[in-house]
Amino acid sequence: MPLSMYDASVTVFLHNLNQLSHLLDKGQAHATAAGLDPAALIGARLAEDMLPLSKQVQIASDTAKLAAARLTGLTAPSYEDNESTFEELKARIAKTREWLQGLSREAFAASEERAVSFKAGPTELNFVGQGYLLHFALPNFFFHVTTAYDILRHKGVPIGKRDYLGRA
Amino acid sequence: MPLSMYDASVTVFLHNLNQLSHLLDKGQAHATAAGLDPAALIGARLAEDMLPLSKQVQIASDTAKLAAARLTGLTAPSYEDNESTFEELKARIAKTREWLQGLSREAFAASEERAVSFKAGPTELNFVGQGYLLHFALPNFFFHVTTAYDILRHKGVPIGKRDYLGRA
Repeated sequence: MPLSMYDASVTVFLHNLNQLSHLLDKGQAHATAAGLDPAALIGARLAEDMLPLSKQVQIASDTAKLAAARLTGLTAPSYEDNESTFEELKARIAKTREWLQGLSREAFAASEERAVSFKAGPTELNFVGQGYLLHFALPNFFFHVTTAYDILRHKGVPIGKRDYLGRA
Repeated sequence: MPLSMYDASVTVFLHNLNQLSHLLDKGQAHATAAGLDPAALIGARLAEDMLPLSKQVQIASDTAKLAAARLTGLTAPSYEDNESTFEELKARIAKTREWLQGLSREAFAASEERAVSFKAGPTELNFVGQGYLLHFALPNFFFHVTTAYDILRHKGVPIGKRDYLGRA
């Protein structure tokens, strides 16, 4: 079986969003155990002008659902980006995963060649499906999942590579 | 054309290693402009028990060349992990890219189904090619490239998402 666009997108997003939820569990447990304000962890960032943990999670969710929508022509659900607790961020991930789980492999047929155009700020970006997935959606998705990990790790949450990968 | 294992591995590694070299250029220029010790930036980490920038670059290189080797049955070049300057780290990336550029698409034929087994510490990991690429090699590769970015950004290097993605 050749590699499918579905596997290279949906299965990757599902697995790594699950790991992101696990990382948030670890963050929440650490806040409780260390007597830290959970809100401080959720608002933590690696540089003053970088986005906080909450936003990294929201964008990881957006990157995954928008990629699947653009590759299939379906419409992704829209969320308000108002999550401010660990529970709310995990619920955001859960509903993103639920929507992704409802997509069929068939919906991704020929998505390698599908025209994908959208605006990023003022710039119109034009891709074909394969290049969009490999050189925009996946790098972006992993950027935000990893930066969420790096923020938690920087703030002392006891996590390691296995918590990110989901296996040894 | 269906998605190929070559495109989902080699072209992704080549592009993002090039961006990693660009991020190091930005770090080097910032050290010069701000009068910082380049060695301090190369040794910077996000947590005391996390790996420094130099090691993130070395592992990004390793992840890319080992993935290509394991998917093709070829032997990856071995490097000494002794790079300690921006120039040396960029040379490490350049030689990794040069080796990847020499691989043929044909070498990746049927690599979706290839058995991939190796030791990670004491643990023997067993994959088939597709799962290895999607759920181990790519997440690991992007983890180290992004963490290199996050270390530089945390230390004040003026970089943004475009410097990571290589496009708007």
